[in-house]
Formats: sequence, structure tokens, C-alpha cells
Amino acid sequence: MQFQISREFIEEIEQLVEEKNNKQLLLHLEDLHHADIAEILDELSLDDATYVIKLLGSDKTAEVLMELDEDDREKVLNNLTAKEIAEEIEEMDTDDAADIVAELSPEIKERVISHIEDEEHADNIVELLRYDEDSAGGLMAKELVKVNENWSVTGCMSEMREQAENVRRVHSIYVVDNKNRLKGRLSLKDLLTAPSSAQISDIYIDKVDYVNVHTEGEEVARIMQKYDLEAIPVVNEMGKLVGRITIDDIVDFIREEAEKDYQMAAGISEGVEADDSVWQLTRARLPWLILALLGGFISVSVLETFDSAMQKHAALFFFVPLIAAMAGNVGVQSSAIVLQGLANKSLKGSLLNRLIKEVLLSLFNGFVLSVLLIAGGMLLLDLDFDFGLTVGISLISVIITASLIGTFVPIILDKQGIDPAMATGPFITTSNDICGILIYFSIAKLILGF
Amino acid sequence: MQFQISREFIEEIEQLVEEKNNKQLLLHLEDLHHADIAEILDELSLDDATYVIKLLGSDKTAEVLMELDEDDREKVLNNLTAKEIAEEIEEMDTDDAADIVAELSPEIKERVISHIEDEEHADNIVELLRYDEDSAGGLMAKELVKVNENWSVTGCMSEMREQAENVRRVHSIYVVDNKNRLKGRLSLKDLLTAPSSAQISDIYIDKVDYVNVHTEGEEVARIMQKYDLEAIPVVNEMGKLVGRITIDDIVDFIREEAEKDYQMAAGISEGVEADDSVWQLTRARLPWLILALLGGFISVSVLETFDSAMQKHAALFFFVPLIAAMAGNVGVQSSAIVLQGLANKSLKGSLLNRLIKEVLLSLFNGFVLSVLLIAGGMLLLDLDFDFGLTVGISLISVIITASLIGTFVPIILDKQGIDPAMATGPFITTSNDICGILIYFSIAKLILGF
Repeated sequence: MQFQISREFIEEIEQLVEEKNNKQLLLHLEDLHHADIAEILDELSLDDATYVIKLLGSDKTAEVLMELDEDDREKVLNNLTAKEIAEEIEEMDTDDAADIVAELSPEIKERVISHIEDEEHADNIVELLRYDEDSAGGLMAKELVKVNENWSVTGCMSEMREQAENVRRVHSIYVVDNKNRLKGRLSLKDLLTAPSSAQISDIYIDKVDYVNVHTEGEEVARIMQKYDLEAIPVVNEMGKLVGRITIDDIVDFIREEAEKDYQMAAGISEGVEADDSVWQLTRARLPWLILALLGGFISVSVLETFDSAMQKHAALFFFVPLIAAMAGNVGVQSSAIVLQGLANKSLKGSLLNRLIKEVLLSLFNGFVLSVLLIAGGMLLLDLDFDFGLTVGISLISVIITASLIGTFVPIILDKQGIDPAMATGPFITTSNDICGILIYFSIAKLILGF
Repeated sequence: MQFQISREFIEEIEQLVEEKNNKQLLLHLEDLHHADIAEILDELSLDDATYVIKLLGSDKTAEVLMELDEDDREKVLNNLTAKEIAEEIEEMDTDDAADIVAELSPEIKERVISHIEDEEHADNIVELLRYDEDSAGGLMAKELVKVNENWSVTGCMSEMREQAENVRRVHSIYVVDNKNRLKGRLSLKDLLTAPSSAQISDIYIDKVDYVNVHTEGEEVARIMQKYDLEAIPVVNEMGKLVGRITIDDIVDFIREEAEKDYQMAAGISEGVEADDSVWQLTRARLPWLILALLGGFISVSVLETFDSAMQKHAALFFFVPLIAAMAGNVGVQSSAIVLQGLANKSLKGSLLNRLIKEVLLSLFNGFVLSVLLIAGGMLLLDLDFDFGLTVGISLISVIITASLIGTFVPIILDKQGIDPAMATGPFITTSNDICGILIYFSIAKLILGF
């Protein structure tokens, strides 16, 4: 049932574009979902893609444009005039339209807006552009169905039919007062069963979840997930109803946020994709690698200060990557768990309890690993017991330290209002490498003496 | 507007439970959303929570139970009789009910099912239990609104009203034939505007996205996101309509999947949370650490084979953690990008193109980092140029190797049908540590000779 894009189909489309066989092209594409057409355009050359966009009516291509990759969309839009872009935008919901307009360069942006014929639509887009794109204001659409609490049921029905024309999915009917302040919501069932002489104020439900235009997207996502909402109204500072956010926009947001956190943890900034250019990928990856390189320099200096050990206990140096790797792994584990707890707001209990728990956990894990290390080292690598004990005790200490750093650095950053995801990945592994090596050699010096 | 849980409120509830002041308790709780009540119960002792659950009617507590943490829910259910659990389950939608029943021990499961009075409900739950919990069958609910293509519009309306009673949100009306095979969907607008003598077969839309009971949850999530669907019907092997999945269940699934991938990458299995017990956390973390320890042993052996370098070029050993860290970081970056590309199905182009791109990218990044390393090493650490060059050339080679391992191991696993997320985190960093050190000393041996 699902459309499956194939090499043959793409080649057929390319052939038809080359022949300028518009009739066959339209036949091939008219029944496809806009998301599928976007997939096809992703595979075509820029010229071919632009040809198809211009051929299809803007009621269809408006949706296709929204589904395109941001980079591809930018290129396609560059091939269209401001008037052509404005025609696409006329067909879009205000939230999508504002997203597209926000991507345009300042001078084109102004030209495009001036070409939008529906003045209310243009006003709405300009209003949405004012908000931060990750806030409720930046995520909301202006399209919604609302009724005045002072209307009668009969008047309400005809008003609603008109409003519903502009709204793809109704989800909820919101109730406002004469000053457009959000008062509650109306259930369609209650509306249909109420006597036609009744007033809206008699039948509406005065409990409704809402968010403010400045509420952060993450918080909107949390509320909508917690209360299983499919749409949530957005009010401004004066409590006036100014828009609504639907769950499909939030699904994208949740996925993007989860990907961003994971990428940060992997040492990648800017939300790149595998198909971005070498230059974009470098910009996202190189800074983190330079940070790790600087950390590497510090670890070189630390090791240099212990070079007196090299004469008597050369084997200590063979265990450096093992100790560093354990420190890095434990740190990443601890920080990932805390980070997800912070993101879900599921971290409970006091800092002291968390401290005790992390120490217990790493004592236990560290003990098991140290026993394995000592046993393995004596059996496989022929180490003497004293040396094994030194490495084992170091390992426990390094694991405890790494888990504490991994746990508390994100918590402290979060309390300071800094994104705790910054503290995962390269940052945690690098600082744990350095601390780990320092602890390891300090303990070795104490026990073995050199 | 949103309910904010406070220490004072919890203490008030605890006080009221102790006084057995049921009237005040109900007053405090009756207006709260079930998700908020669940948050409160999370903070109470098990006995207090059970008291509140038993006090509230099962129409309310059924929803509260669904919102509870799995561990807390297990404990609360242990305090209820099979009959009491069955009463809660009667009030739940079939998908939620099946999830709860699946968590029970086998003997209690049977007793609970036998206590469910609504036979159809029980049958539905038993049917849902048959499916894998991550498949469309495991995610779907039996509640939906469907009409027969042979019905008239008038007959359809009264049938629908009856069905809608059992369905929280209608979303879509599905059309089936006499054998219950999915034929299409019906728009409420078309139904309302059609002449009452018309047949459903005249007005339904024969294009409808659907999934099979065995479709994997990830694929369901991808389709619903791609086509912006709020609900999708599920058919069995014979094309019969057996259930539907709504977007709110998929939102949870998407979040959980994203968290799982990130946790895997951080070396944590089983989807643990920060508030799980030390034992659960150990089970999720220790196996990965043991894997890293084994890798560490190999790196010790590799270093031992190069111990002849220690006399003439001791400084080589100081750079081991730097080289290992760079290999690890590059590998994690590459694998994270590929993994997200695989998850979103956005990886395009041939393997050869990807190979060329990764080599180009790592050549460029490696070159920049090596220049920094040589310059930094000579200025800060007083290295001679030959030595710096050795480390620099090693660094480029290590970075290229690490990025190729990070890119292609997940791709190869994915082609073999193995979860590519397995290949991130500890696995990638450990194998890159070993390869990196091996390459580093081999190149050093070639250039410096020892």
C-alpha cells in the first residue's frame, strides 16, 4: 500500500521532464502524497525538481516544499521569483509559511511578503516571525476554531462552519470572551445536543490546558505528552488566544530534540545529517575534535611528569589506555542517564541521595571490574600481585571519580541555566581521561613509589 | 494554569490519608488530571498510594495507573486483588489494558482475565497479548469507528453514534466490506452533506494508509510522521481491519526509541532511568564496562609488543591517550551520524560515494588536527620535528581509520539485519582505541625505527 520509491520510477520521471511531457508527468504525480513527491524531488537534479514544482499547482507544491530537506528547499526557492514563492505561501498554514519565510534572505523576505495577496495571512506570518522558533509562539499556527462565550448555539454553528473552512483538522473548539481572552473549550458533542436557544457560556468546559507564547518548545512537548493532548491553545501576555499548536508539529520537535541531544553527546553540533556537505560536517565536528586535542595535550603533560616511573614500572604505561577508556565509558554512562532524567523531569530526590547512590553503584561496579582486572592481569599478562593491586585500586578510584563527574557536571550546568547536553560526549570523556590518568599515576606512586 | 506539585500539597495528602479523611481527600483530588494524580502517587509511600487508588473510582484510577512509573505500578498492583485489578482494566482502552496485563505474572494474569466481566473486552485483550509489544499489533487498540460499505448514510449515522460511545477520540471513520476487509475511509464532512439515501460505497475515499499487525513500531512511527497521520488503521494477514494506532501512543514510542538509541550509544542497555535501583543500573551498565575492560586488555598487549620503543622514544607512550581519544571521538561522531541517517531512512547514494566522502572529510579534519598537533607539540612540549611528524601522520591515519570503522560497521550490521545501535558507544570506542594504538606504533616504528 505504501508508495515505494524506485530507481526505475525516478528515471521515468527524468525522461518525462526531458521530453517536457507535462501530461504524462501530471498523470504520474497527481495521485501521490506530497511527502512522496518530496522524496522524488530529493532524487532529481535541481533543474528537474524546479520544473516539476512549477508544473504542479501551488496547492500541491506548497505541501511538497514543506516536506523537502531544508537545503534542497533553499535551492528550489532560489529558482523561483518572489511572486512564485508568495503563491506557494498563500497555500500554506501560517506556521509552515512562517518557517519558510524565516529561511529566506532579508531582502527576498520583504519582497515575498509584499506579494502575498491575502492581507490577513501576511499579517499572521509577520506576527509569527516575531517569536523565537523554539518557543510556543514560533511553533503555533494562527488557524483555529474559536467561539465567543456570549454567542447562542445557533449563531455559533454557522460561525464555526465558516472558520472550519480554513482549518485542516479541527481538534478543539476554543471559547473566548469579548476581549478574545481564552475562557475554555467546547465539546462538539455538547454543542450538538444543546438546545439551540442555549448560550455558549452555559455549555462550555472551563478547564483547558494552554501555554504562553514564550513557553519553551521542550515544555510544550512535555505538557502535550503528559496530558495526551492533540492540540493546545497558545495565549499572549494578556491571556488572549493567539494560536494553537498541534501534535504533529510537536512530534517533529520531539524527534529533533532527541537527535540534537544525542548528537551533542557524540560531539556534533548544529544538527547535521549524513548527507550534508563535507564543509558542513567539518564545521559541526572539528571544534569538538580540537577540544579533545587540547585535552590530549594536557594528558601528555600529565604523563611527562610521571616519566620517572618508566625505569622501574614501564608496565604502568601499558595500562594507560585501559584506565582512560574505563573512565570515559563510565562518565558517558552516568551523564547520559542524568541527561535523560533532566530532559524528562524525572530526576527526583535530593543531591545527597544521588551522591550516595552513584558512589555505591561505582564502588560495586568498580570492585567487580578491578577483581576481573587483577585476575586477568595475573593470568593473562603475568603481572605480579602488587602491581595488579595498584592498577585495581586505581581503577576503582577512577570509576568513582568518573561517575561523579558524569553525574554532577550536567546537574550543576542545568542549575546554572546552561544546556546540560554540552557536558556530555567529548567534554566528559576528555576531562575523565585527564583526571583518570592523574589519579592512576598518583596512586601508583603512593603504592609502588618511584 | 498547569498543576504544580508541591511539598506542602504532598504533606497535606499524607496527613489526610493518615486521618482517613476520605471526603477531604476526594475534594483535593477530584479536579486533578489523572497524570497529575499519578505524579502525586509517585511521591507517596506504597501504602498511602494504594489507599488513594482504592478510594478513587476505577474510572479515574484506571487512567492514573497507566501514567504511573512501571515499577510503582507493579507494586501498587501487588496490593490489589485480581478482582480489583480486573475492575481497573474494564475501564481501560484495550491497548492500555493489554499493556498492564502483560506486566502481570502468568498466574495472576489468568485470574485477572477471568474476572473481566465484559467478554468482548477480555477477548480483545487476549488477542492483543499475542502480538510482539513493539509491533503494530502490540501498539494498536481495538477501539475504532468503522462502517460497512453497503450501509446507507442513514443507517450508518445511528451505527456510528453507538460505536463512538466506546471511542475516546474518533479521528477517522474506516470503511470495510462484508468480510471486514479495509476498503477506505470516510470524511465526516462528506457523510454530513451526502443525501440520506446514498450508500457508503458512493461517498467513501478509497485511499487510506494502513499497516499490517506485524509492521515494526519504528516503521509505523516513520509512516505516521512522514504522512502527518493522527491515526492509522491496522489490518491482519487477510486484510481485515483489526485495530488502529493513534499518534499519542506513537509519540511515547518515538521518545522511547530515541532514548534507547542514545542509551545504547552511551553503553547502557535495557532502558534504565536515573531513579532505578543500583542493581538495575548495574545490570544495564556493567556488561558494557566488561566489554571495554576486555578491549583494554588487548590494548595492553598491543603496547607490550612495542616496549622496545621505550628506551629510545619514551615520549611515544605519552601520546597514547591523545591518539586513543581522537580515534574514539571521531568514531563516535561518524557512527552517530550514520545511525541517525539509518533511523530516519535519509541515507542516500552509493556506498562508494559515502566512502569517498568520509575519506575526504577525515583527510581534511585530520590534516588540520595534525598541523595543530605538530605546532602545539613543538611549541608547548618542545618536541623535535621528526617526532612531531610521526605523531601527526599517525593522527591522520588513525582519524581516517576511525571514521571508516564508525561509518561502515553500523551500515554493515544494518544490512545483516542487526540493530546498528549495538555498534556505537563502547564497541566503537574500544575497537578504535585498539586499532588507533596499533596504527600509531606501526607508523612510528616505520619512521623512527626501534
